[in-house]
Amino acid sequence: MASYDYDLFVIGGGSGGVRSGRLAAALGKKVAIAEEFRYGGTCVIRGCVPKKLYVYASQFAEHFEDAAGFGWSVGESTFDWQKLVAAKEKEITRLEGLYQKGLANAGAEILHTRAELTGPNTVKLMDSGRTVTAERIVIAVGGHPTPHDALPGHELCISSNEAFDLKELPKSIVIAGGGYIAVEFANIFHGLGVETTLIYRGKEILSRFDQDMRRGLHVAMEQKGIRILCEDLLQSITRTADGRLAAETLKHGTLSADQVMLALGRVPNTKGLGLEAAGIAVNERGAIIVDAFSRTSAPGVYAFGDVTDRVQLTPVAIHEAMCFIETEYKGNPTSPDHDLIATAVFSQPEIGTVGLSEEDAARKFDALDVYRAEFRPMKATLSGRSEKTIMKLIVNAADRKVLGVHILGHEAGEMAQLLGITLKAGCTKDDFDRTMAVHPTAAEELVTMYTPSYRIKNGERVG
Amino acid sequence: MASYDYDLFVIGGGSGGVRSGRLAAALGKKVAIAEEFRYGGTCVIRGCVPKKLYVYASQFAEHFEDAAGFGWSVGESTFDWQKLVAAKEKEITRLEGLYQKGLANAGAEILHTRAELTGPNTVKLMDSGRTVTAERIVIAVGGHPTPHDALPGHELCISSNEAFDLKELPKSIVIAGGGYIAVEFANIFHGLGVETTLIYRGKEILSRFDQDMRRGLHVAMEQKGIRILCEDLLQSITRTADGRLAAETLKHGTLSADQVMLALGRVPNTKGLGLEAAGIAVNERGAIIVDAFSRTSAPGVYAFGDVTDRVQLTPVAIHEAMCFIETEYKGNPTSPDHDLIATAVFSQPEIGTVGLSEEDAARKFDALDVYRAEFRPMKATLSGRSEKTIMKLIVNAADRKVLGVHILGHEAGEMAQLLGITLKAGCTKDDFDRTMAVHPTAAEELVTMYTPSYRIKNGERVG
Repeated sequence: MASYDYDLFVIGGGSGGVRSGRLAAALGKKVAIAEEFRYGGTCVIRGCVPKKLYVYASQFAEHFEDAAGFGWSVGESTFDWQKLVAAKEKEITRLEGLYQKGLANAGAEILHTRAELTGPNTVKLMDSGRTVTAERIVIAVGGHPTPHDALPGHELCISSNEAFDLKELPKSIVIAGGGYIAVEFANIFHGLGVETTLIYRGKEILSRFDQDMRRGLHVAMEQKGIRILCEDLLQSITRTADGRLAAETLKHGTLSADQVMLALGRVPNTKGLGLEAAGIAVNERGAIIVDAFSRTSAPGVYAFGDVTDRVQLTPVAIHEAMCFIETEYKGNPTSPDHDLIATAVFSQPEIGTVGLSEEDAARKFDALDVYRAEFRPMKATLSGRSEKTIMKLIVNAADRKVLGVHILGHEAGEMAQLLGITLKAGCTKDDFDRTMAVHPTAAEELVTMYTPSYRIKNGERVG
Repeated sequence: MASYDYDLFVIGGGSGGVRSGRLAAALGKKVAIAEEFRYGGTCVIRGCVPKKLYVYASQFAEHFEDAAGFGWSVGESTFDWQKLVAAKEKEITRLEGLYQKGLANAGAEILHTRAELTGPNTVKLMDSGRTVTAERIVIAVGGHPTPHDALPGHELCISSNEAFDLKELPKSIVIAGGGYIAVEFANIFHGLGVETTLIYRGKEILSRFDQDMRRGLHVAMEQKGIRILCEDLLQSITRTADGRLAAETLKHGTLSADQVMLALGRVPNTKGLGLEAAGIAVNERGAIIVDAFSRTSAPGVYAFGDVTDRVQLTPVAIHEAMCFIETEYKGNPTSPDHDLIATAVFSQPEIGTVGLSEEDAARKFDALDVYRAEFRPMKATLSGRSEKTIMKLIVNAADRKVLGVHILGHEAGEMAQLLGITLKAGCTKDDFDRTMAVHPTAAEELVTMYTPSYRIKNGERVG
């Protein structure tokens, strides 16, 4: 039997890496984990966590405005970007510390270095040049924003990585992309007072989401004052004499802005990782190919999270890590379950969704009942804010099973989480109907939709 | 066959009355509905709706404070109570109009009068003195706050009815009661800047709720600055020379306040309604006794909602009305289902709950697994607000069925609504475990509780 320095060596201190390292160490395994940047990974350092904190920050301007309708007079308010950045930094540093503390308490060895594979079961620590061996290796190095090298002037642009820590809040920004990162940042910057333009090559933002969500959010964002240019593209970015940027578009001429942010997708961090040396196969996007148990093509090497390009979400990476622990260290073979994952877009209003969009459901099922409600949220009656909440249930007419739920509105993310349970449990429309309303809530709409708004048969809308 | 003036006569224009009248009229029945005060009933006019609007109003002060942690400087704010009352009045008048419009569009005759029963199938309209007959009569007249006649000086006190429309916002208020109305108003007044004292005879506020919710909310309210006196009672109220009120308590001496509000329960509006003449039996509390199909002891007379003292909630009254329509006019006998009703307390933070409290579950089941999480909500990390969210799952160890879910925290009401579906559908802890987290949300705690916090066996906490 071969003897290794470690039972488990984890490359990457993000959600998936830390969870697997901590749990394995807690089970008594000899574990080391290496991270070249900051523990916590994309989620904690430059993703979910700072994003949501900035979303909160960006909502206060609306709170101040809304107050008037409820009898309040609010004095002038000002916003200090540097204060927000510093507060965010303090919080993510605290979380970073907690991640390391969890690892240390479990007995894992924490390394602050880049680590690369040099062969089967061997990892090179790039700070010292030392090579170590491990019985099992986990690769959980995540991904990074596409730099879009083909775009002339791309080096003048920022990505979500830099957006969190800009020295100054720009007066104006152009954001390229139509995915959830582009959309969330557009709402954040707009809420903080930045003149914001979103430019996206597709017909409508948020492809793959339900059409009502896509269109509904588009309308809501425009009503707030965000400019959205669909079916258009950035052609080049140049620095102008006044220090600002000129973004040349295909159809809308030149956009002038202080910053241009590219949010055009993310790519796996596999470059230079030594995957070839270790015999680990990647796909055409550079993502590590894994089987149903997160095993790579190299024996004893596993990969979780964004680097595998399955589903790029923190809870999914954590789930994959936990399945790995069950399978490899607890004798309980467990394959990650990627079916019916509820998700949220922390736009303003939020989108919360689980299951099939109407369009996808219509392709897969012969007959659907669609229940759709669009209403003004209660708070807006007094605030006078023009906004609509949209809720949709997509139901399979054959067996009444709820196939998809889609919500555009306040706290849609919280709702999606709990609706996720109902879809995972295979609940039917009858289960929804049997449930008493909680009044006054927004979610009560979901249990008081008595008749279908319309039906879909063989892909065509009827009735 | 007897001939009647109406197929259906509805007494009471609140939630249950309007729903039954509207649906029956829409089915082609000849319907009249009589309301002596304002259409919309307690819910719209002096209950759920204005309450929630006032909750929103009372939250702005915290929004202003929270903003600082996110980089905002907010100028001085002032609050104008009369503006809020006027805005509320405008909104409930709009809703009142919608209720009447719905009835009118369906073809119901809308009467603005008190109506009393004078015998079987006969109703007297008190404005004109005219007597009309109806094949079926619905009594949905609701209830009103207990005046507590036995308390010396009770006539100097207000109830929730008056609280919404006070001419001036008091500087200080004493609220007697420990139920949800007392608790909600205590938070509203405190949030609007009123020095607020809650006095309640019981050991802890919100009897019958889960102990963690009761205690957790108590602590949260005290941290905000609300004074809570449990196990104490008002003995008398007197007007003092300065025009204020002196509330004599059993244990805490004299409390001086601008207003004293009694929120000591509600009683059915059955006095003088002619129930005896019609042969309708009431219980010892004056509530109309009904069977499983909302039938009173008089043939052809039905009662829904608060007047029946079953479950005093708007959606329940509406549900009872809809069951009546199914049973009587659609040939589909349907008995109201009062099991597993999710509810919310719109305190600050909110409580959302469905199913059994830990205490009740421990009495009914041999072995429970209790999953409990207490954490700082994400927004509070930057706002610096000291607050805790508490979430609890009560699980039957024998079959893993989730028996109760209890949440203290932001948007707990929205969450309770959707958790209601899962409990109604009989979901198990495994269904929760199988659900992927949505990150970052508060609700994700509910699907990431991997091991019980403690167990209960034969009513005793173990492990």
